[in-house]
Amino acid sequence: MPSSPIRKLVPYAEKAKSEGKKIFHLNIGQPDIETPETMLNAIHTFSPKVVEYSHSAGIESYRRKLTSYYDRYKIALDYTDIMITTGGSEAIEIAMMACLDEGDEVIIPEPFYANYNGFGMQAGIVIKPVQSFIENGFALPPISEFEKVITPKTKAIMICNPNNPTGYLYTKDELESLRDLVAKYNLWFFSDEVYREFCYDDKEYFSVMHLKGIEQNVVMLDSISKRYSACGARIGALISRNKEVMDAALKFGQARLSPPTFGQVAAEAAIDTPDSYFTKVKAEYVARRDYVVEALNKIDGVFCPKPSGAFYCIARLPIDNADKFCQWLLEKFSFENETVMLAPATGFYSNTALGTDEVRIAYVLKIDDLKRSIRCIEEALKVYPGRKSIREAVRAQS
Amino acid sequence: MPSSPIRKLVPYAEKAKSEGKKIFHLNIGQPDIETPETMLNAIHTFSPKVVEYSHSAGIESYRRKLTSYYDRYKIALDYTDIMITTGGSEAIEIAMMACLDEGDEVIIPEPFYANYNGFGMQAGIVIKPVQSFIENGFALPPISEFEKVITPKTKAIMICNPNNPTGYLYTKDELESLRDLVAKYNLWFFSDEVYREFCYDDKEYFSVMHLKGIEQNVVMLDSISKRYSACGARIGALISRNKEVMDAALKFGQARLSPPTFGQVAAEAAIDTPDSYFTKVKAEYVARRDYVVEALNKIDGVFCPKPSGAFYCIARLPIDNADKFCQWLLEKFSFENETVMLAPATGFYSNTALGTDEVRIAYVLKIDDLKRSIRCIEEALKVYPGRKSIREAVRAQS
Repeated sequence: MPSSPIRKLVPYAEKAKSEGKKIFHLNIGQPDIETPETMLNAIHTFSPKVVEYSHSAGIESYRRKLTSYYDRYKIALDYTDIMITTGGSEAIEIAMMACLDEGDEVIIPEPFYANYNGFGMQAGIVIKPVQSFIENGFALPPISEFEKVITPKTKAIMICNPNNPTGYLYTKDELESLRDLVAKYNLWFFSDEVYREFCYDDKEYFSVMHLKGIEQNVVMLDSISKRYSACGARIGALISRNKEVMDAALKFGQARLSPPTFGQVAAEAAIDTPDSYFTKVKAEYVARRDYVVEALNKIDGVFCPKPSGAFYCIARLPIDNADKFCQWLLEKFSFENETVMLAPATGFYSNTALGTDEVRIAYVLKIDDLKRSIRCIEEALKVYPGRKSIREAVRAQS
Repeated sequence: MPSSPIRKLVPYAEKAKSEGKKIFHLNIGQPDIETPETMLNAIHTFSPKVVEYSHSAGIESYRRKLTSYYDRYKIALDYTDIMITTGGSEAIEIAMMACLDEGDEVIIPEPFYANYNGFGMQAGIVIKPVQSFIENGFALPPISEFEKVITPKTKAIMICNPNNPTGYLYTKDELESLRDLVAKYNLWFFSDEVYREFCYDDKEYFSVMHLKGIEQNVVMLDSISKRYSACGARIGALISRNKEVMDAALKFGQARLSPPTFGQVAAEAAIDTPDSYFTKVKAEYVARRDYVVEALNKIDGVFCPKPSGAFYCIARLPIDNADKFCQWLLEKFSFENETVMLAPATGFYSNTALGTDEVRIAYVLKIDDLKRSIRCIEEALKVYPGRKSIREAVRAQS
């Protein structure tokens, strides 16, 4: 398995840190938001005699309670439509293995979450990208572009909504156009919706589970990692109303015995997290996004669309090469002994020619740290040897 | 992925339970032993602001402390030789993916832990069994039998020591003969040693990690599930002194982000579990084993070798078909409204002609329950319609 561009940066970050530089980590989706107390309280009072395997599909009381969580989003489920997984990662891995055979093709709009590559490789499936563009904020590519890459081996469409790495929130119209495509070719429709709590600007969250007529084709991948800022709990879910999918998924679930018990106990309690928690968290993310996007767009030659979901944005920078720039930031640059670690967007594109002047920024730090981070980027762009001239930058944007 | 013989029994067990029958579960490796308090105490005082992803290879302090645990077994390790996994299951899965290519062959003495099949299938590898025999307690088959199935595609040998499902504890001589084979053909040597705490009769636990001269070929798979009766924590480890293996394993580890944080916190504390805990647990298992094996061998036509490790034994019964018998026990039989759930040994053999009159018994219940369980088996064999005559049974044993 090849190393991703972010992972290649890790030794440079470690070296910079050992030299005493402060690094602002805008490269990862590890939120700084506090985990709700209700989760830790549940763990603090959990005192079984034996910490047993749970059911391979997860603790039944948790699965039943989860249906009430989805009800709030008008997603009506039976608890048997839900299998608890070890993080969203395992939900993706099991969905691919349960639904697809080796050599099957999955179409995914790019840029996409880099780890889909790893899971695809493990499952022996082939990812066919369809390009989305920074100019329109990474909206869904036209359906005609999907149809161009459909072959007899195409078995699934996959999206992430709200999107990592772009922050784009797909509209109802876009989802419905994908539904028609899925129905026309009888494909699986995988949707990774782990950021549903983070939709902004009063825009509607429209789930793949809301689509009528393709219920048997739909598999939703979910996780509590971002929702409750509890990435370490490693609790996700694979959700489908297709019984055959759930049966096949369970067999893979049985092979690994069970998802983590402690995490499930915390996750079950988390469902009682008060709305006020999310109101506060959303307000915080909106303020951060507004700051980051505005500040970035003020920098000469930088373009950053304003996304309506998740906590990421992708910015185009006036640089020769995003991998080199991100490494240079850690290795050669500092401003007041501080620098930033960014994710080169190259890691999110299958097509190696794309994303070379784009970076993903996770706004997972407090506003003050974000201010210092953006100032670092601004100062860095003034002195980066591979900086493009304004003319080159304008040309790249046209 | 096909259903295993045990899983096929689950609906019958559920039906029997719904009809009010009491079922003694001798079919699973879920110990009834209490999880050490030190683990739960650690969880009860764990109060981070954010439940973060850990490092993909596990929390560093835990990995460092684990080296002191292995030191007690005279296994000298650097913490970088250890990658924490989500249960032993993931350690097996990642070891196969990190070391093997699709189509590669792995030789495993059978009967073997049924889930190896699932992981092998997921990794696209081919398991080549070499038969071990109940008559000598499932000792290691002669090395010549391994050599017979070696082909240019053979890339690894795998054992489980002490063994699940047989309880057999491999000797130093057996390990050394495998070492010579591994060296001769330059194979990987995977050893699943999750039952090392459970070695009886003063017999020596000899680890694959103790072998000299093949350090770069060895990968040990481990788990805290059985050691501390903490199956639900989902914490295991992949261990190798081969840096390339550890690098490749880490890439798979990064794809799934991190092992569970709560479980790791508990597991780190578990290393301080006092010796007295294990002394007590071992004494309990020895008493159970002694009772079960003796009682089984007293039943007409039953043969059960006395294993020196783990908490399983395999018994040969005077029956036509182990799958049918185990189903019949749940579906048709009861004695004083009680019955037993056993694991048909067919699930532990690749060769479908083997294990048809054998069952695996996990002695994970208290002695009183074991007494009633064995009585059930005894009474059942008196009336089971597919019972072999004594003559047939004797013939099967010769």
